[in-house]
Amino acid sequence: MSETYDSNNVFAKILRGELPCEKVYEDEHTLAFMDVMPRADGHVLVIPKVPARNILDIPADALAHLARAVQTVARAVKAGMQADGLTLQQFNEPAGGQVVFHIHMHVLPRWNGVALRPHTGAMADPAVLKAHAERIRAALA
Amino acid sequence: MSETYDSNNVFAKILRGELPCEKVYEDEHTLAFMDVMPRADGHVLVIPKVPARNILDIPADALAHLARAVQTVARAVKAGMQADGLTLQQFNEPAGGQVVFHIHMHVLPRWNGVALRPHTGAMADPAVLKAHAERIRAALA
Repeated sequence: MSETYDSNNVFAKILRGELPCEKVYEDEHTLAFMDVMPRADGHVLVIPKVPARNILDIPADALAHLARAVQTVARAVKAGMQADGLTLQQFNEPAGGQVVFHIHMHVLPRWNGVALRPHTGAMADPAVLKAHAERIRAALA
Repeated sequence: MSETYDSNNVFAKILRGELPCEKVYEDEHTLAFMDVMPRADGHVLVIPKVPARNILDIPADALAHLARAVQTVARAVKAGMQADGLTLQQFNEPAGGQVVFHIHMHVLPRWNGVALRPHTGAMADPAVLKAHAERIRAALA
């Protein structure tokens, strides 16, 4: 039943520097960057550096590192985006909503009365992503 | 901005044994039980035993323990429910979708072509919850 890791996925390419990202946080074990199709302003993805497809196969230690980074980033997203709350989502396998097969946690800032935007498949303006990233980086500094 | 922990929340009462739950997993640091308003058959909640409101205030070590328990439970939910995938959700503050103010991770089994059910506020039949819990407990055994 277990699926394999494909090292040609988009996030693996970002980790290898073969594709760009708007980075907000990095440590020895994890990387966080802006989702290019944000469902909310300030939508960030947090990923481990180890090759892992999803929650089913990630090594336990790597998952613990990921959880700590998610907390660090979540606090900064809330502060930097002046959000009222946060929604975290993590999708596993296509039936679970997964599209990129390197485990990632969605960190979505939320505001009272504001719904998440639907998935349109449209890429956000890079200048807008950068402006939001700067607010989050400032909160992390 | 930070909110306080109210020890009269429903999950605190479950942890103290003042309210029942259909338990599927427990260790020194965490407890997992069936969501009484499941958005999918086999919908489980995983919580830490420490008092923590959400991702913003949970101690880092408790969060790491929670992440490991979520992985253990997620694998068992997928196996026990013969699911094709899993969706994990964690809500913070009312704007983020949080209703019970003790941090909890939703573990939702998913099947190809089956959408999550809407939140209706209706309680599931306890016999149905028990039958699903037994499948998950068997996968954990």
